[in-house]
Amino acid sequence: MGTIVTLVTDFGNRSPYSAALKGVILGVNPGANVVDLTHEIPPQDLRHAAYYLLQALPYYPAGTVHVVVVDPGVGSARAILLIELKGRHLVVPDNGCWSWLDHFHGPATTVRRLTEERYWRNQVSSTFHGRDIFAPVAGWLSRGVAAECFGPPTQEWVRLPLPACEIGASEVVGEVMFIDDFGNVITSIPESAVPARATVQHGKESVTRRLEAYADGQAGELGYLISSSGFLEITAAYGNAARRLSARVGDTVHVLAE
Amino acid sequence: MGTIVTLVTDFGNRSPYSAALKGVILGVNPGANVVDLTHEIPPQDLRHAAYYLLQALPYYPAGTVHVVVVDPGVGSARAILLIELKGRHLVVPDNGCWSWLDHFHGPATTVRRLTEERYWRNQVSSTFHGRDIFAPVAGWLSRGVAAECFGPPTQEWVRLPLPACEIGASEVVGEVMFIDDFGNVITSIPESAVPARATVQHGKESVTRRLEAYADGQAGELGYLISSSGFLEITAAYGNAARRLSARVGDTVHVLAE
Amino acid sequence: MGTIVTLVTDFGNRSPYSAALKGVILGVNPGANVVDLTHEIPPQDLRHAAYYLLQALPYYPAGTVHVVVVDPGVGSARAILLIELKGRHLVVPDNGCWSWLDHFHGPATTVRRLTEERYWRNQVSSTFHGRDIFAPVAGWLSRGVAAECFGPPTQEWVRLPLPACEIGASEVVGEVMFIDDFGNVITSIPESAVPARATVQHGKESVTRRLEAYADGQAGELGYLISSSGFLEITAAYGNAARRLSARVGDTVHVLAE
Repeated sequence: MGTIVTLVTDFGNRSPYSAALKGVILGVNPGANVVDLTHEIPPQDLRHAAYYLLQALPYYPAGTVHVVVVDPGVGSARAILLIELKGRHLVVPDNGCWSWLDHFHGPATTVRRLTEERYWRNQVSSTFHGRDIFAPVAGWLSRGVAAECFGPPTQEWVRLPLPACEIGASEVVGEVMFIDDFGNVITSIPESAVPARATVQHGKESVTRRLEAYADGQAGELGYLISSSGFLEITAAYGNAARRLSARVGDTVHVLAE
Repeated sequence: MGTIVTLVTDFGNRSPYSAALKGVILGVNPGANVVDLTHEIPPQDLRHAAYYLLQALPYYPAGTVHVVVVDPGVGSARAILLIELKGRHLVVPDNGCWSWLDHFHGPATTVRRLTEERYWRNQVSSTFHGRDIFAPVAGWLSRGVAAECFGPPTQEWVRLPLPACEIGASEVVGEVMFIDDFGNVITSIPESAVPARATVQHGKESVTRRLEAYADGQAGELGYLISSSGFLEITAAYGNAARRLSARVGDTVHVLAE
Repeated sequence: MGTIVTLVTDFGNRSPYSAALKGVILGVNPGANVVDLTHEIPPQDLRHAAYYLLQALPYYPAGTVHVVVVDPGVGSARAILLIELKGRHLVVPDNGCWSWLDHFHGPATTVRRLTEERYWRNQVSSTFHGRDIFAPVAGWLSRGVAAECFGPPTQEWVRLPLPACEIGASEVVGEVMFIDDFGNVITSIPESAVPARATVQHGKESVTRRLEAYADGQAGELGYLISSSGFLEITAAYGNAARRLSARVGDTVHVLAE
């Protein structure tokens, strides 16, 4: 198998954009092992992308090329970055979508700006850099072209604000960082800040039952646990906690020791 | 190409779980040929998963490793099974999701319980065995580690009730087994139990037109045919039969000879 | 890596059909590099499929085998075609879904009708030719069986009407050709027919702001630009233009020089 090239986009699966991207990569390197991670990042949702990358990319082996196209600023002056981070390469728009990964699993070894147009498609559309710049660069990277060929290093790039989390003496105040497809509500509060016995508050709801696993709760009962990502998570056994709580990303969550 | 490793989960595509799973497999075996079947099994819907596996897995070649993570009991005492069935390997939670496949296309040659933790990730989250146990085991299997290395055989496992179907002298009573993305209503009644001329009843609706193909009906007309899976199916030409009938999985279906 | 075999279907991802298709291909050729493009073409929507193929397939390298199963006529007398077009092979139902590709990026070198049943599965269901005919033929093609083995050339096939576009002296009248997952409204009006300064009319709305990139507009502002596919496109910066306009495929769009 060839070099692994993964894709994360917000293109959706009814539109031809992800297919065009893959075609260009395979046109440059028919031996690439192209792996779709998702094309269903909610449109232009940088925080969603940031959490997704943080939780998915660290599991890939060194040498992987990761392409991320969640790019509301396409065609503007925003840069495109080629990042080396723990032995992998990332090709991303300079909008901060990768900065949580950098903070929690980095730091990056080198960050470059793509400038060498000879690795781009001949014609570059101002609305589809994914196809015309990101994809061919990923193809050439996967064929072994060295990172320094694509552009010069830079020390400046956009950072997305980190998820809020204030750890006080008697209280921790965090926020909803992500809601998964099961309706689990993942907060910004790390395991180390969660007391052994705690009350977790979201809006008017107080959750006091600590679970070890989803199946430990009564059906529909709200509980909290430490998620597989190491953060405090509110769940409803065999149910949808986010719907129960009307929770949204960014909502405040309080944790009080009992 | 390396060993084929297929994935069936209920993770959805907006969450990072399926990507983490694939990263771990590729971390263990960068040469694996990872093939997504679906990540859109409705959350925790074991009957949906059972039908899906029954209709999809028999078409894969011997040697394939199939990973199934539809696992509401994750973190509880439920076992994880490694099954040999007609030359393939399945890694599944012990909740019966594979038992229709076993009944109709088996039986399994050997069923083992995963116990050998050296093939798991170092830290095992109680809420994500897919990433921490299923995925690395699939990776090692695909690299050629023998099944007996992962745990001892067992004779006990959970079976999901088979779809109901009573074949009487004048009547067959079955149930809706699956509704596909086109709205076709697939019942539990096998081809052999369907008379040449029949009346198919669902709720207050009687369907008497037998079709050879979807396109044989008038637009929107209800008809029945033998599905590609060998079961009685109710369809609406160029339309959505399930919506027309307000059909749901589990609904009773009667078949009467004309 | 083996020959690339791409898949475009309207099967959806909750149903087992796409998985069965892939299993059959991999059963014939375990070394094929099967690449899902999409399984989310809206059910039986030939125009959607036609646009999708037009925008996706030209980016794949010569030698690729493209399988398209958007096939409302399955089981009827409609033919199945094996097409050679610019060095690729397409296996498609004869319903015109590939004819825009042929018009804009062809023409096809040879068009054949599949007749040689020895390359099909032993039993052919009248409702699932994708699994029983398209998939094994694609598998054998990807293993190097020559196109002429699968059936004789034909000079007749179904063509889908081209998107309407009338270019007059003072006005261009086109139609909405596609709406993407971002809500961008892509029309049938080619770049060459768009004056430097134009008014674009859809229903009662007049759009006069020409953008170079999505990010050039004020948030939510309607503008028009030349899409990455070379056609006139109406967009709403950081918003959903289709929703704003209540636009649907087939709606009339007028362009007037200012």
